[in-house]
Amino acid sequence: PGLDFGSSSSGTTQRGTQARAHCGTEPVKCAMFGHARSKFQSSSPSPNNPGFLQKNNNVDEKGRIVGPFTEQPSPKNLLTRDNERGSRFRHTETDFSNLYARDLLPAKNGEEPTIQFLLEVVDILTNYVRKTFDRSTKVLDFHHPHQLLEGMEGFNLELSDQPESLEQILVDCRDTLKYGVRTGHPRFFNQLSTGLDIIGLAGEWLTSTANTNMFTYEIAPVFVLMEQLTLKKMREIVGWPNGEGDGIFSPGGAISNMYSVMVARYKHYPEVKTKGMTAAPRLVLFTSEHSKITWKPQKFSHHYSIKKASAVLGFGTENLILLKTDERGRVIPADLEAKVIDAKQKGCVPLFVNATAGSTVYGAFDPINEIADICEKYNMWLHVDGAWGGGLLMSRKHRHKLNGVERANSVTWNPHKMMGVPLQCSAILVREKGLLQGCNSMCAGYLFQPDKQYDVTYDTGDKAIQCGRHVDIFKFWLMWKAKGTSGFEKHIDRCLELSEYLYNKIKNREGYEMVFQGQPQHTNVCFWYIPPSLRDMPDREEKRQRLHKVAPKIKAMMMECGTTMVGYQPQGDKVNFFRMVISNPAATRSDIDFLIDEIERLGQDL
Amino acid sequence: PGLDFGSSSSGTTQRGTQARAHCGTEPVKCAMFGHARSKFQSSSPSPNNPGFLQKNNNVDEKGRIVGPFTEQPSPKNLLTRDNERGSRFRHTETDFSNLYARDLLPAKNGEEPTIQFLLEVVDILTNYVRKTFDRSTKVLDFHHPHQLLEGMEGFNLELSDQPESLEQILVDCRDTLKYGVRTGHPRFFNQLSTGLDIIGLAGEWLTSTANTNMFTYEIAPVFVLMEQLTLKKMREIVGWPNGEGDGIFSPGGAISNMYSVMVARYKHYPEVKTKGMTAAPRLVLFTSEHSKITWKPQKFSHHYSIKKASAVLGFGTENLILLKTDERGRVIPADLEAKVIDAKQKGCVPLFVNATAGSTVYGAFDPINEIADICEKYNMWLHVDGAWGGGLLMSRKHRHKLNGVERANSVTWNPHKMMGVPLQCSAILVREKGLLQGCNSMCAGYLFQPDKQYDVTYDTGDKAIQCGRHVDIFKFWLMWKAKGTSGFEKHIDRCLELSEYLYNKIKNREGYEMVFQGQPQHTNVCFWYIPPSLRDMPDREEKRQRLHKVAPKIKAMMMECGTTMVGYQPQGDKVNFFRMVISNPAATRSDIDFLIDEIERLGQDL
Repeated sequence: PGLDFGSSSSGTTQRGTQARAHCGTEPVKCAMFGHARSKFQSSSPSPNNPGFLQKNNNVDEKGRIVGPFTEQPSPKNLLTRDNERGSRFRHTETDFSNLYARDLLPAKNGEEPTIQFLLEVVDILTNYVRKTFDRSTKVLDFHHPHQLLEGMEGFNLELSDQPESLEQILVDCRDTLKYGVRTGHPRFFNQLSTGLDIIGLAGEWLTSTANTNMFTYEIAPVFVLMEQLTLKKMREIVGWPNGEGDGIFSPGGAISNMYSVMVARYKHYPEVKTKGMTAAPRLVLFTSEHSKITWKPQKFSHHYSIKKASAVLGFGTENLILLKTDERGRVIPADLEAKVIDAKQKGCVPLFVNATAGSTVYGAFDPINEIADICEKYNMWLHVDGAWGGGLLMSRKHRHKLNGVERANSVTWNPHKMMGVPLQCSAILVREKGLLQGCNSMCAGYLFQPDKQYDVTYDTGDKAIQCGRHVDIFKFWLMWKAKGTSGFEKHIDRCLELSEYLYNKIKNREGYEMVFQGQPQHTNVCFWYIPPSLRDMPDREEKRQRLHKVAPKIKAMMMECGTTMVGYQPQGDKVNFFRMVISNPAATRSDIDFLIDEIERLGQDL
Repeated sequence: PGLDFGSSSSGTTQRGTQARAHCGTEPVKCAMFGHARSKFQSSSPSPNNPGFLQKNNNVDEKGRIVGPFTEQPSPKNLLTRDNERGSRFRHTETDFSNLYARDLLPAKNGEEPTIQFLLEVVDILTNYVRKTFDRSTKVLDFHHPHQLLEGMEGFNLELSDQPESLEQILVDCRDTLKYGVRTGHPRFFNQLSTGLDIIGLAGEWLTSTANTNMFTYEIAPVFVLMEQLTLKKMREIVGWPNGEGDGIFSPGGAISNMYSVMVARYKHYPEVKTKGMTAAPRLVLFTSEHSKITWKPQKFSHHYSIKKASAVLGFGTENLILLKTDERGRVIPADLEAKVIDAKQKGCVPLFVNATAGSTVYGAFDPINEIADICEKYNMWLHVDGAWGGGLLMSRKHRHKLNGVERANSVTWNPHKMMGVPLQCSAILVREKGLLQGCNSMCAGYLFQPDKQYDVTYDTGDKAIQCGRHVDIFKFWLMWKAKGTSGFEKHIDRCLELSEYLYNKIKNREGYEMVFQGQPQHTNVCFWYIPPSLRDMPDREEKRQRLHKVAPKIKAMMMECGTTMVGYQPQGDKVNFFRMVISNPAATRSDIDFLIDEIERLGQDL
C-alpha cells in the first residue's frame, strides 16, 4: 500500500504559460482597510469566504506594479531577468527546463549544471537578502493556509511521483521565499529571534555544505573543537573559574532547560537513571509564575519549557511549583523559601529552582543571588534560564542584571536570540564536569575504549540525548570571530538603547499605557494602545473586553498589510497587550517611529 | 568577571605573511606506512609525541605539490586565486582585508560588500562541492585534536575580543572545510548518513536564508504547510488509510523515538503528565538486544535511543527489557511473548515494544507482523524504528521488508539517512491523531484561542517538546519535488544493488569472513578482514584477540591516509568487524573495489 506510481504528470513546469502580477515593492497603502475592517469581525475564513485577505489580494492585484518576483510568461525568461537587475554571476545560457536533479553531481558531466544551478539559487538568495534590508519591501505577503494549499498562482505544494525540472525547482525556491516571512526585515519584531546576520548566514551555508554531525571528533574534528572552545569561553563569561565545567549545544532553549532538570536529577538521585522515578522520593521543581502565561503560540514561552520538562521527564506538571512575582515579573525570593518549606512539610523533596534571566514577556530578571542563597540553604540545584537574557552577559553595562549567575549549577543561553545568531543555537552550560556524560552515557566502559587512534574524550556523543546532532556551532563561532566579543557587546547595548527610546517615546504618550511601570530590564516593552473610542470609557469590564480585542485586530491588519510584525498576549489578569522586543541589528529609531505610527494608523478607528 | 576587553590584538590577519604548502589533490601514496606502523602501537599521542600522524605530516609536507587550498604569501592574493581556477563570479576588486562584519548589511552602503562577501563564500563552497565528488581528493586530512588546537598553519580556533577582517573570515571558512571530513565523498562510508545531495544543499541554503522556525503558521506559513503535506505523504506510504494521523519532524532519530515512548505513555497513562511516573504502575519497554552493542562512538546506535529514552523519561534503564535475536539480528517473536508474560507475572505492565526496521549494525528488519500480533494480544504500543530502514518503504522492490508497518502505532523514519537528505531530517509519525498535542500541550484552552485571524490548528508549537524548532522540512520537500517518489526509489534500489555487489565480491574471497550468513537485508555488509598472518592460526583466543585489533588498525591508517572511511565495531561476543553501509548516491562499483583493495593494501602485513 501507499506506493502507486501512476500516470501522474505533475513533473512539468506548472506556470510557464501564466502571466502573473505580484505584489511590488512600493510602500503598501492599505487603502482597502475601510472595507476590510468591516469584514474583520466575521467568522473564520473558508474557501468560499476568505474574507479580509482575499479582498486585500484582489485590490492589490490591480494596483500593484510589476515587482521583483514577477515572472514573465515564457519559462525561458524566468531566470534570465535577474541578470538585468545586477546579478554578479556569469550566467551561462543554461536551459534548466530540460535539466533534472539526476543531471547534477554525482552524474557524469554533472559539474557544470551543478555549479550553474547552485549559482542560480544563490542569485535568488542574494536578491532576497538585499530585499530583506530594504524598508520598501513588505515584511510578509500574508495568505491563509487554505489559499496556499489551493496553490497560489501555480505554487503547488503537493509532492508527486515524477521529478520536476530544475527550472521548476528554482521557481519553487522563489515562491517559497515570496510567501514566507522576512524575519530579518528591520520592522520584524515578532519574535525573540530576529535579524539576518550576514556572517551567520555564511556560516550556515558552509555548515550545510559540510553536512556532518557533532557525534564524534572523527567526523567533525573542527566543529567539535570549536564547540569546546566556545563553550569554555561562555563559561568564562558566566564567571566560572577558568571556564571549567561542561556543556553542549542543543536544539533550542526548551531542550537546554530539559537537560538542566535531567542533570539535577542525576546529581541528586543517580539511581533514577536505572530504576526510574519510582526510586526517588516525590521531587518538586520551582519556577516563576510567569510560566502561567496563557498559551499563545505566537510567542516563544521559555518558562513553559520547565513545565514541559516536568511532564516529559516523569516528574508531573503538578510537581512544578510556581513562584509569585513582583509587579515587574521578578520572582519574590521569600515566596520561594516559603514554598520550599511548605513542600518539605508535605513530604516532598525540593530539587530544582529555575531563575529566569530575561522572561519571555516582561523581560524580567529574577534576583539570582537571593535565589542562590535559598538554593544553598536547602541543597537545591540552581538553574538560570538565560535563553533570552544570557546575551546581556556580553555587555559590561548590562551584565549586572545577571549578578549571581556564577553561582548557578547550570545555565541556558541561546545565542540565537539576543545575539542574533541564526536559528538554532542554544547552549546548556553545567558547572560540574562529568554530570552530562554520567547522565546520558549508556555505557560506562566508554572512557576506556582503547582502539581509536585519537583522544576519544573529544567525542560528544554520549553527553547528548541525541545520537546525530546538528552542527550549530560554526555560525556562532564565525560571528564571534568576525565581530569579536566587543561586537556582540555593541549590538546588545544598541538594542537596549533602542528599547529605551521606545519606552521614553510612549510612556507618557496619549493613547498608551504601560503594562508595568519603570524602565524595562531587557528590550521587552509591554504596552496597551488604547484607541480614541476607548479612552474616555470608565475602567470597567466592558472596556477590558474591548481593549482585549485591540491588539489582535491591529496585529491582524499589520500582517495583512505586511508592513510590520509585533507580538501580543495577555498575562495573568491583564488583557491582550503588545510585547515589543528588539534583537534585530537592522532596526533603527525610524523603525520604532514607524511601528508607533502604524499602530496608531491601524488602531485609531477601532 | 569574565569580560575583560584588554589589549588583545588577535583581530588582524594572522597568516598573511606565512608561506604555506598544503596537501594537494594527488592520489595519496602513503609511502610512510612502513615507518608509521612501527609507531602505531605506541601510547596515545601527546604534544611532544604526536606519533604516527605527525610523522605522516612531515613526510607529506615535503612531498606534496601546491594544492587548491594553498595560499600565497601576500594576503591580497588569498582571494584572487580562485578566479584563475574557473570561478564563475564576476569578482570585483574588493579588498576584504579592510572590511569587517560591521561594514555589511544592515550598515549604510553595506549592500555591495555584503553581496561580494557572500559570493566569495559561495566560491569557496562550490569549489568544495566540486572536490567532494572528485576521487583524486582525499576524504579527510586527519589531525589530532591537540594539533588543531595548537593552530594548524595559523588556523586559530580561539575567540577574541576584537573583530577579524572579512579576509580572515574567508580564510577561516576555507580552513574549516580543509580540516573537516568530506561526508559526501564517494568513498566516505563511515555513517548511515552520507552523500551531498545538490538539491538538498540548495534547500538548506534557502532554509538558512529564510531563518525562521516551525513554531507557528504565522512565522513559517510555507514551511508549516510543506511539513503537513509531506508528513501526510509519508503516512500514506506507511499504509495508514488516507494518510491520516499525526507527526512532526524532530532533531534526529533519538528524539523521534523518545516521542514514541512519550506518546505511548500518554495514551495508556495520561495522568503521568500531571502526576509523574509514580502515578503509573511499573511500566516496562521492550527492544532488540542489539541495543547491547558495545558502545562505539563512531557509530550511530539508534537502538540506544530507546535506552536513552527510558532513562530520560523516568522509566529507568532496568525497565527496558532486551529481546533475543536470531543469527541475522532479528528479534525472535517468541522471546518477546515469553518476556511479556514474565514481566506481567512480576507485576510489571508491558507498555511499549520497539521493532527495528534496519538495525544499525546488521541492517536487520524485525518481523513486524508477528510482533504486532503480540502487541495486539497484550495491548502494547507498537513502535517501528525505521530511522535507517524506513527509506525502503519508497522502493516497491524492498518495502516488503517492513511488511506490517501499517499496524504500528508510531514510526520513526529519518530521511537524512537512507534517502540522502542533508542532516538533520527525522520524522516521528503517529497513527492516532491528537496524542502528540495532548501529550505535549501545556494548555487545554489552546484549541479555542479566538483572536488570531487565521486557522491556528496549523500551528505546531504545542505538539513539540521544543519551543523554537528548526526548519528541517524544506530541503526534503525540495528533493522530493526534484526527484519524485520514483527518484528516491531508484536511489534506494541502486544502493541495495551496490551492497549486493560488495557481498557477492567478498563472501567467498580469501581473507574475508562474513559476520552473519546470507544476503544482508539492508545495505549493511558486516565482515572481518583476516590478514595473511592470521589465516592459518587455530581458532582460539589468541586469534580472536589479534583479529579484534585488525579493523581498528586498518581504520586508523585509512584515516591518516585519508583515502576512505568505513566503520567497525564488535557485537556481543564477536570481535571488531567492519560494517560497510551504502547510502551515498555518488558511490559506484569502482569505489567498492577501491575499498577492498585499500583494506587489503593496509591490512596485508598486520
